[in-house]
Amino acid sequence: MYAPLQNDTFIRACLGQATEHTPVWLMRQAGRYLPEYRATRAKAGSFMGLATNTDFATEVTLQPLERYALDAAILFSDILTVPDAMGLGLSFATGEGPKFANPVRDEAAVDKLAVPDMGKLRYVFDAVTSIRKALNGRVPLIGFSGSPWTLACYMVEGAGSDDYRLVKTMLYSRPDLMHRMLQINADAVALYLNTQIEAGAQAVMIFDSWGGVLADGAFQSFSMAYTARVLAQLKREHQGVRIPRIVFTKGGGLWLEEMGALDCDVLGLDWTVNLGRARQLVGHKKALQGNIDPNVLFANAPQIEAEVAKVLQSFGTPHQGGGTGPTHVFNLGHGISQYTPPENVAVLVEAVHAQSRHMRK
Amino acid sequence: MYAPLQNDTFIRACLGQATEHTPVWLMRQAGRYLPEYRATRAKAGSFMGLATNTDFATEVTLQPLERYALDAAILFSDILTVPDAMGLGLSFATGEGPKFANPVRDEAAVDKLAVPDMGKLRYVFDAVTSIRKALNGRVPLIGFSGSPWTLACYMVEGAGSDDYRLVKTMLYSRPDLMHRMLQINADAVALYLNTQIEAGAQAVMIFDSWGGVLADGAFQSFSMAYTARVLAQLKREHQGVRIPRIVFTKGGGLWLEEMGALDCDVLGLDWTVNLGRARQLVGHKKALQGNIDPNVLFANAPQIEAEVAKVLQSFGTPHQGGGTGPTHVFNLGHGISQYTPPENVAVLVEAVHAQSRHMRK
Repeated sequence: MYAPLQNDTFIRACLGQATEHTPVWLMRQAGRYLPEYRATRAKAGSFMGLATNTDFATEVTLQPLERYALDAAILFSDILTVPDAMGLGLSFATGEGPKFANPVRDEAAVDKLAVPDMGKLRYVFDAVTSIRKALNGRVPLIGFSGSPWTLACYMVEGAGSDDYRLVKTMLYSRPDLMHRMLQINADAVALYLNTQIEAGAQAVMIFDSWGGVLADGAFQSFSMAYTARVLAQLKREHQGVRIPRIVFTKGGGLWLEEMGALDCDVLGLDWTVNLGRARQLVGHKKALQGNIDPNVLFANAPQIEAEVAKVLQSFGTPHQGGGTGPTHVFNLGHGISQYTPPENVAVLVEAVHAQSRHMRK
Repeated sequence: MYAPLQNDTFIRACLGQATEHTPVWLMRQAGRYLPEYRATRAKAGSFMGLATNTDFATEVTLQPLERYALDAAILFSDILTVPDAMGLGLSFATGEGPKFANPVRDEAAVDKLAVPDMGKLRYVFDAVTSIRKALNGRVPLIGFSGSPWTLACYMVEGAGSDDYRLVKTMLYSRPDLMHRMLQINADAVALYLNTQIEAGAQAVMIFDSWGGVLADGAFQSFSMAYTARVLAQLKREHQGVRIPRIVFTKGGGLWLEEMGALDCDVLGLDWTVNLGRARQLVGHKKALQGNIDPNVLFANAPQIEAEVAKVLQSFGTPHQGGGTGPTHVFNLGHGISQYTPPENVAVLVEAVHAQSRHMRK
């Protein structure tokens, strides 16, 4: 059905297999820092107009690949599509973040929640299939979802938050309600990701963007346990091909050792984590993805190259022989800033490829 | 000059000495969640009107002690007084955070920076002396400052930030400028805290509120190194009495072992850190302060008591014999929310005292 993969460096590194260079892709690589993205978005009229239109979503997903030798593409979509399909009414006001018209703040609202009909998310699966075809085997396509806890944050807060007061109030005062919501979210996310895999996604990533705001103990019970519930339901392969599973908890560095027990292939790390130490803790069990500070991209070329070197050297030389071993997927520690000069991304991608090839010699 | 200390539980715990209960105070304990604070602030007209008026600052500092059996008072002030005295023009617009009229964004602006004349901060030292007198030995008074890095964040950004783009751009592209600014900040903070000690502060705390946004490596060079530079200049005692020094890095849990080498008495921890693990790592060298999630205060009384128990049990029984050993100062992991019901703070403080007394039996 699809063209064979020409560059499988990313997939191999995810699965702990040797590669000739360290693969690199960037969270939010199809985004506002690219003038061609802004042009397509202007045509689409709005963020959701862009995400729900198969042609536009395909166009913007491929844009960064035209500029940079990235080793993976990631579906252009939003982490909040699932609660939108649950009927919460997602919108994006200009200059602001996402908003839900119907936040979930009491038992009656939780009672109404259910795993949504995947038909309501058909625009996502259509985009996956369209992008996979358009990629034509160039690089693999990553599908994704927000984690159950991260979805719950937005579902309760109704928008972004700087203190997570409402969602944590529910967590501490009505843990029973929170657990019910998280179970539904986990089952919905698992179904959503499996349907993305059937539609053509060659790897999947769970973004636990707000796991790091939880207290020790609460993280394990309210975030990690439900990420595990998603992973337990995910397809390991599709049509005989392995589908790597990536978990990224922003601010989760303190729980890395515990996350080593998750049934996934890759752990994503933000820039606060020392990659060498992470490799010692979990590198024998998982590939590691990350973790340069996106603000490095505001420096000049020699400084970007020096910071790339620090990250690569911190991980050390990846596994190079037969079988599997510690491997590294280079990425930012968070989404790329909309203010990033596009030419600096080229410097970063080239530095990762050149330096990581050199390290293997 | 001052009345003798009647309750020195906090000071003893800071210094690793045995206490009959775990002392407790709360970051931002004199704040907007208290109706009496809001009344005084209304009289003062503005936040800085409150902070610069000795009588008002004394009044609000003592307010939470009237309601709760807290074991320490903390100077009512702001972490940004030092850059204000450097001429950056601090203001607080209603409903917004702090703002600087003259942010520091280029070499010319850094060239103009210098350790400010402490005369410009006289309102702070007058408040310290006035509060110390008004406390009349009831509990000790903590003085404080922002850390060199945290001050630099505000000085460059000119306000709060969610991505620290401007300050990190300077850090990555002009590390020389950033180091110059941080040296000046460190020397200014040291002088500021020493002058607070001379004015009557019985302990001092360095708030590294934004240390946790730095990448591994950058934290050590741009935050911790300058906290160390402050500590190296701080008075260890005043008039023959030891002055405990507390360092709190929000989001710094990953660097706890390295922070164990800092020349201070106490490390403050946020709620992401497992206290038991922290005790294993650094408890033999430092007292630990923290770390309940302030959002616990939105639950009801039995749940607050249960969460207090978790934090106390996570630390375990503190040192109880002669000499010094692992000790715990109970606190929130961050400032108290303005939306906190005041009666819930009473539940927390009583639970800490009662449960920690019980644990020692």
